[in-house]
Amino acid sequence: MRASFDLSLYLVLDPVQCGGHDAAIAVARAALEGGVTLVQLRAPEWHKRAWFELARDVLPIARTHRVPFVINDHVDVALAVGADGVHVGQRDLPADVTRKLLGPDALIGLSVSNLAEAEDADRFAGVIDYVGAGPVWATPTKADASAPCGIDGIAAIRARARFPTVAIGGIQADNAADVMRAKPDGIAVVSAICRASNPRDAAAALAATIAQSRS
Amino acid sequence: MRASFDLSLYLVLDPVQCGGHDAAIAVARAALEGGVTLVQLRAPEWHKRAWFELARDVLPIARTHRVPFVINDHVDVALAVGADGVHVGQRDLPADVTRKLLGPDALIGLSVSNLAEAEDADRFAGVIDYVGAGPVWATPTKADASAPCGIDGIAAIRARARFPTVAIGGIQADNAADVMRAKPDGIAVVSAICRASNPRDAAAALAATIAQSRS
Repeated sequence: MRASFDLSLYLVLDPVQCGGHDAAIAVARAALEGGVTLVQLRAPEWHKRAWFELARDVLPIARTHRVPFVINDHVDVALAVGADGVHVGQRDLPADVTRKLLGPDALIGLSVSNLAEAEDADRFAGVIDYVGAGPVWATPTKADASAPCGIDGIAAIRARARFPTVAIGGIQADNAADVMRAKPDGIAVVSAICRASNPRDAAAALAATIAQSRS
Repeated sequence: MRASFDLSLYLVLDPVQCGGHDAAIAVARAALEGGVTLVQLRAPEWHKRAWFELARDVLPIARTHRVPFVINDHVDVALAVGADGVHVGQRDLPADVTRKLLGPDALIGLSVSNLAEAEDADRFAGVIDYVGAGPVWATPTKADASAPCGIDGIAAIRARARFPTVAIGGIQADNAADVMRAKPDGIAVVSAICRASNPRDAAAALAATIAQSRS
């Protein structure tokens, strides 16, 4: 289990949305300057060699900002580059297997898309560090995503979950405040930063929205 | 490096071609009875949870037959189930990284599709155990395969390679003898066994062809 981490503004770095390897590095750097508190690499269209090369390049940038860097799904890529952890979905390696492979200090997150999955996650107490709840809304970003749970769904999962909870799925600058009313521990964004004309400003604006919603 | 292994009749087990999880187990068992000398799991359409569950079920069957069982691409799945090794392509994790993750005793293969890649593989002396050369012919099995190298290409790679070489790509019962004239250390098949009406007989017939070509 990770000693400390902050889910407030969680960037899912999709290098295809960013515009490729080099663009993704630039987005990661700018987003971290703007206030992102955690970075996950997710590149479902990419071969693993490209994941590895990008992860290796992003890790030191995240380290400079003292922000955890985790890999979606691919435990082997995380092990290969020495990333801080892995985020697994319901169809990836089981969370307990992931923990065994990564060891006790890794940061491990699990996706849950409804109350049943949130309740099922209880068996991973001591195994996972947080849950990613969503998608809040339908999103073209993730073709194989589960049915949207809405803001009420996030609130229900948050009320039920034994784990810190980050909301994900369709969250943009103009609806982030609405999502924060469900009291998640943070919000995860993909296109809101990866496709932003100025990722640093986009991250800073989202960070301000999150801070405001907590005041 | 693996102490000993036999590339003669190398089954690439594609569970989608077999007809699903249970059918793939039946094919693996029958093919091993028929004389397969190595089994690789490859399920590019599947999520990793399904790979994990099938790998966990196939491993003990391969062990019963004292045949190595390797995983295509996913080092994490291999580590999770304790498989004998991994086969990596040019766009998967680099071979040296794969070796570090799997340790000194694992069986590691690398795909090469032309003479340049076969020459490049020389830098992995002491890292990889064998090369998979191909595709010999174009095959609908692998949508993202490299250009076919033909039987002459296999012969050229075989003459050049410092590693045991298994030919792959479009090999069927009716052309296996032709491929063996290029003197590979073995042939790898997918649909020739996975789609066979009787996988045991298909494997036995291929094993007989290979034995005959060496006599």
